[in-house]
Amino acid sequence: MARACTSWGCCTWLILTCVCTWGHPNPVDLGRQDVRNCSINPPYLPVTAVNTTVQLSALRQVMLTQNLSAYIIPDTDAHMSEYIGEHDKRRMWMTGFTGSAGTAVVTMTKAALWTDSRYWTQAKQQMDCNWELHGQVGTSSIDTWILDETPSRGLVGFDPFLHSIASWERYNTALQDSDRELVSIPTNLVDLVWGPERPPIPSGPIYALQEEFTGSTWQEKVTAIRSQMQKHQEAPTAVLLSALDETAWLFNLRGSDIPYNPFFYSYTLLTSTSIRLFVNKSSFDTETMKYLNSDCTGSMCVQLQEYNKVRDSVQAYALGDVRIWIGTSYTTYGLYEVIPTEKLVTDAYSPVMKTKAVKNSKEQMLLRATHVRDAVAVIRYLVWLEKNVPKGTVNEFSGAELMDSFRGDEEFSSGPSFETISASGPNAAMAHYSPTKDHNRNLSTDEMYLLDSGGQYRDGTTDITRTVHWGNPSAFQKEAYTRVLIGSIELSTLIFPSHVSGWTLETFARRALWNVGLNYGHGTGHGIGNFLGVHEWPVGFQSNNIAMEKGMFTSIEPGYYRDGEFGIRIEDVALVVEAKTKYPGNYLTFEVVSLVPYDRNLIDVSLLSPEQLRYLNRYHQMVREKMGPVLERRGLLEELTWLRKHTEPLAEPLPGGAPGPVSLAMLMAISSILVNLGWSI
Amino acid sequence: MARACTSWGCCTWLILTCVCTWGHPNPVDLGRQDVRNCSINPPYLPVTAVNTTVQLSALRQVMLTQNLSAYIIPDTDAHMSEYIGEHDKRRMWMTGFTGSAGTAVVTMTKAALWTDSRYWTQAKQQMDCNWELHGQVGTSSIDTWILDETPSRGLVGFDPFLHSIASWERYNTALQDSDRELVSIPTNLVDLVWGPERPPIPSGPIYALQEEFTGSTWQEKVTAIRSQMQKHQEAPTAVLLSALDETAWLFNLRGSDIPYNPFFYSYTLLTSTSIRLFVNKSSFDTETMKYLNSDCTGSMCVQLQEYNKVRDSVQAYALGDVRIWIGTSYTTYGLYEVIPTEKLVTDAYSPVMKTKAVKNSKEQMLLRATHVRDAVAVIRYLVWLEKNVPKGTVNEFSGAELMDSFRGDEEFSSGPSFETISASGPNAAMAHYSPTKDHNRNLSTDEMYLLDSGGQYRDGTTDITRTVHWGNPSAFQKEAYTRVLIGSIELSTLIFPSHVSGWTLETFARRALWNVGLNYGHGTGHGIGNFLGVHEWPVGFQSNNIAMEKGMFTSIEPGYYRDGEFGIRIEDVALVVEAKTKYPGNYLTFEVVSLVPYDRNLIDVSLLSPEQLRYLNRYHQMVREKMGPVLERRGLLEELTWLRKHTEPLAEPLPGGAPGPVSLAMLMAISSILVNLGWSI
Repeated sequence: MARACTSWGCCTWLILTCVCTWGHPNPVDLGRQDVRNCSINPPYLPVTAVNTTVQLSALRQVMLTQNLSAYIIPDTDAHMSEYIGEHDKRRMWMTGFTGSAGTAVVTMTKAALWTDSRYWTQAKQQMDCNWELHGQVGTSSIDTWILDETPSRGLVGFDPFLHSIASWERYNTALQDSDRELVSIPTNLVDLVWGPERPPIPSGPIYALQEEFTGSTWQEKVTAIRSQMQKHQEAPTAVLLSALDETAWLFNLRGSDIPYNPFFYSYTLLTSTSIRLFVNKSSFDTETMKYLNSDCTGSMCVQLQEYNKVRDSVQAYALGDVRIWIGTSYTTYGLYEVIPTEKLVTDAYSPVMKTKAVKNSKEQMLLRATHVRDAVAVIRYLVWLEKNVPKGTVNEFSGAELMDSFRGDEEFSSGPSFETISASGPNAAMAHYSPTKDHNRNLSTDEMYLLDSGGQYRDGTTDITRTVHWGNPSAFQKEAYTRVLIGSIELSTLIFPSHVSGWTLETFARRALWNVGLNYGHGTGHGIGNFLGVHEWPVGFQSNNIAMEKGMFTSIEPGYYRDGEFGIRIEDVALVVEAKTKYPGNYLTFEVVSLVPYDRNLIDVSLLSPEQLRYLNRYHQMVREKMGPVLERRGLLEELTWLRKHTEPLAEPLPGGAPGPVSLAMLMAISSILVNLGWSI
Repeated sequence: MARACTSWGCCTWLILTCVCTWGHPNPVDLGRQDVRNCSINPPYLPVTAVNTTVQLSALRQVMLTQNLSAYIIPDTDAHMSEYIGEHDKRRMWMTGFTGSAGTAVVTMTKAALWTDSRYWTQAKQQMDCNWELHGQVGTSSIDTWILDETPSRGLVGFDPFLHSIASWERYNTALQDSDRELVSIPTNLVDLVWGPERPPIPSGPIYALQEEFTGSTWQEKVTAIRSQMQKHQEAPTAVLLSALDETAWLFNLRGSDIPYNPFFYSYTLLTSTSIRLFVNKSSFDTETMKYLNSDCTGSMCVQLQEYNKVRDSVQAYALGDVRIWIGTSYTTYGLYEVIPTEKLVTDAYSPVMKTKAVKNSKEQMLLRATHVRDAVAVIRYLVWLEKNVPKGTVNEFSGAELMDSFRGDEEFSSGPSFETISASGPNAAMAHYSPTKDHNRNLSTDEMYLLDSGGQYRDGTTDITRTVHWGNPSAFQKEAYTRVLIGSIELSTLIFPSHVSGWTLETFARRALWNVGLNYGHGTGHGIGNFLGVHEWPVGFQSNNIAMEKGMFTSIEPGYYRDGEFGIRIEDVALVVEAKTKYPGNYLTFEVVSLVPYDRNLIDVSLLSPEQLRYLNRYHQMVREKMGPVLERRGLLEELTWLRKHTEPLAEPLPGGAPGPVSLAMLMAISSILVNLGWSI
């Protein structure tokens, strides 16, 4: 599972392409008691609705002091993070709506929220009638509303740290063209009125990763990035890092400020002669400060500066004869606007982001080792399910908890890498589904079950999805599963030229589905980190991902979803490796490093080509060879037996593969020989 | 064959992706007499070099009057045309260099040309030492040079009609950031100094296509575009058309101002209440003026205005309460700059461009019919070659002439749709190769021969490539040809969801080559018109093409090129049609409408899957069924015999397809049965 940062904030990876529909949320849900009805007087509000009158009024008072006609409240943080901390959930606090995607805009008389169809019901449950609800997503609908609701020459305020450069550009163009002014206000107005209720900014310890878990020392990484600066034709004098995983990777530091990610709030300004790390300085112990050489100011000393000083510090640095290299995808307007345009060197992604994307041999080795331990946890869970689901005592939530706890048993474990998706039957068709203690479904031998989960380990991050059925799947379920599997195999075995974009390759994962009129509405894969993000940009198969290179890791995760019935996804993590081709050339292919068998109960072997079947059997043999000895050593004998059973080679249904005209012709030829020989058939 | 408009002007389609290398043209070619040597004193100039001192000095005098430090001379025309008229070849006249791609910049003391590696030798043959030659392509190298060669606050002049909006934006950003000013000068300075030598602007007749050749009347088209304006949420009051094929299509008018294209110089401003056609008014006869209702001013009257009045007229219109809808890809800065930003409605392509891309049923029928007649011409040529090449009397140029003349024999013929590529042996590996009367190669049974050609007919435009070998191709040549053919089959038979971008589909045409480490360095296909452009944007498989829709026509043209040895390309035109899928959905596939057999002498059947072989045999059967009766009716009996021979079903080399492990296992099973029965094998 993985992420995609859109103009519209961060959206859960899987719903990216088209699972969510945009449109008009029905204003009145007749007869429903659980959602608001703002069309009657007085309005009907369910008990779940949050009264936002006080915070709205407080915000409007602050807006008045700044002479603002409108104020925009997005749902991201200052690092364009996928997961954001509680203290950053400003839009949630203002609106009452807790969904992860949505933008709010407040004027002096109105307030409006934009979110997609996944969240319409939830928004109507949680918001009071202070808020209009809009279904169209994307800035153009928001622009239009702002233009309707603000006077000519009106000022529209926004927090520049919560807007990407692209998002700012879009708003700015739209408003400027229509005689409104977009005003950057670096002090967040919601924070001003949130008061003591606001959760504190995390300040957990920041620690250095042990050397055994790192691919290179931070000094080596700093030297490598500086060398890229020197070679760059625009001669940048500094690199500014805004994404949290950039700084964590560069210094081999980890923290716990963000859910599911071992990140800490930070920025880095790496110049050719100095290193400035903007961070909560009190989060470091003496040892870590020593590790960073933080008591000096030379080119290999990390000068610690307070996190909130970054803007001033960058602005001051930009006064000199300098050029600052940024990755525009993760730099917010808050830093962008303090650097004069002629002093900017821009790429979509910073050199750190792109260097981090290619794992060196030690990092590859670490990630492979992580996947072995992760597979132990998943196999233990699958074996346990096979025994316990028939008893009817397992539900999606208790299952997810057990999965997480099996991962917790593994060496170097550091919690799940995202909220475990444990979904049975129709729930698996909902891309954003996660069970809760109170809302979940029982697992059953009558339904398909989808498990999408991953772990953080000190040596790496994992992400794997398996879909299983313990009873008698329908022919359609088997066909759909097998076609998803074929997609996975076709993409995993693809040989392609170096530096081709994954976006043009992922259709191979869809063809077997397309052939019969099926498809899936999400992306096909994403990069993954070494004890960093489970969705590590910019690697993957999205249109804005960078080209594939040897040493990258990506998930490969086709799926198929039948609304109200079931959901299928098969996800593996694969390493990009050199391909040996008949004629010499710089070609690549994938090597799957996930080590959990596919559910043979769902495979219709007759749909596989001989090549696909051979690959499948090879994969299972590899899983058996790698995992067998590990399970044995760990004394997991029941799991070992299960592994052997689930990695047996699958036989072709008939010699010659699927019974096409060719093999039929052949069978008839044999028959006629045998008939001629006097055999009766 | 087809085009791709890049930032760098219009580049021949086939060289788009990577056939041309960028880099540094070697300044000195030791010992060569045919190229200049500017490093010696006095410089050595070959007889082919053009003395440009006079025109440079004249241009600089004009630049002086405008206080310009530099002047940019691109190689396009005011309509971003693929082919440009002689009077528009300003860069050629200034530099002496006749290649189709290149940008020149002149300062008061220096002059420089940028072109790609295809043209380096030619540039050094044609240019004198007034000109620096630069190999890096793209505006950034030009920007850097301009910054080096002009003073701070210097003015850099350009003709706004020869720059796309995007090209202007790039130059403007780069120069503005560095304190130079880009100055738009609507009167072209080269034209001012070109004088009487400049070829006249064509003024051939403009005529209305007979109704039998049009899909709808111009009135229907105008009504349809106005209806799109009304439905548009930004409520445009007018559409401005700049590309020549937009106006030609809208009014069903054709002309002959541009080589290979039945276009005429024109712009259209279609408002909700009026129609203004900017054109050389004297090119119309009374009948055509009546056809256009040009004697009135109502909403269905086409008001003819002089071509060079377009800028003033658009500017005057833009003073009103209006919104003008443009396609930014084909609108030049010359018109863009006179429309206030807030009065613009922009899309990459105009509604006319996108409407034209989807052919209605009559247009489809017309294009299919064109392809039948075109196939007659190509088959006649292939049959003639088969007889005459062994005699050694055919060369690339005489062959191309004959091909063109066979097309000329066909009904409704209106000349070739591009310069015929007739290339034997190593010449076919050069993507931009066309033979001339003086430079050509003899066709031989020892070499592969590539023919890429097409025709203009009043009912449609064609484009087809066949590669043939009349002798004994090597195993590698057969393998390469067959893998190209597999690519063509895989893409042609692909089933994909409606509205998917061709860019993500074209990799299917490459996989069979990639599998063994081969590839091709150009795009995979382009749209095509109904007696319009042979490379009709925005349909095709390029990254900036629009998504595939039912009713579009595109070429499918994978290839493989072996430098210095041979070149292979197979090109068909295909219609996008609905696919019938097992499960209901909105899926599409292709239907090939080109009707010329592939060369079976080059097919290694053992490489084809049973499905691919079945498709190939089905295609040949279809060709036989469609072309057989036509050849018979035309009395082309020799061609009919040839057709029958070349459309015979191909047999599988062994029962069971390629001898993979599966069929081997099966053969062994049969053997063992037979052995058991006492047979000896």
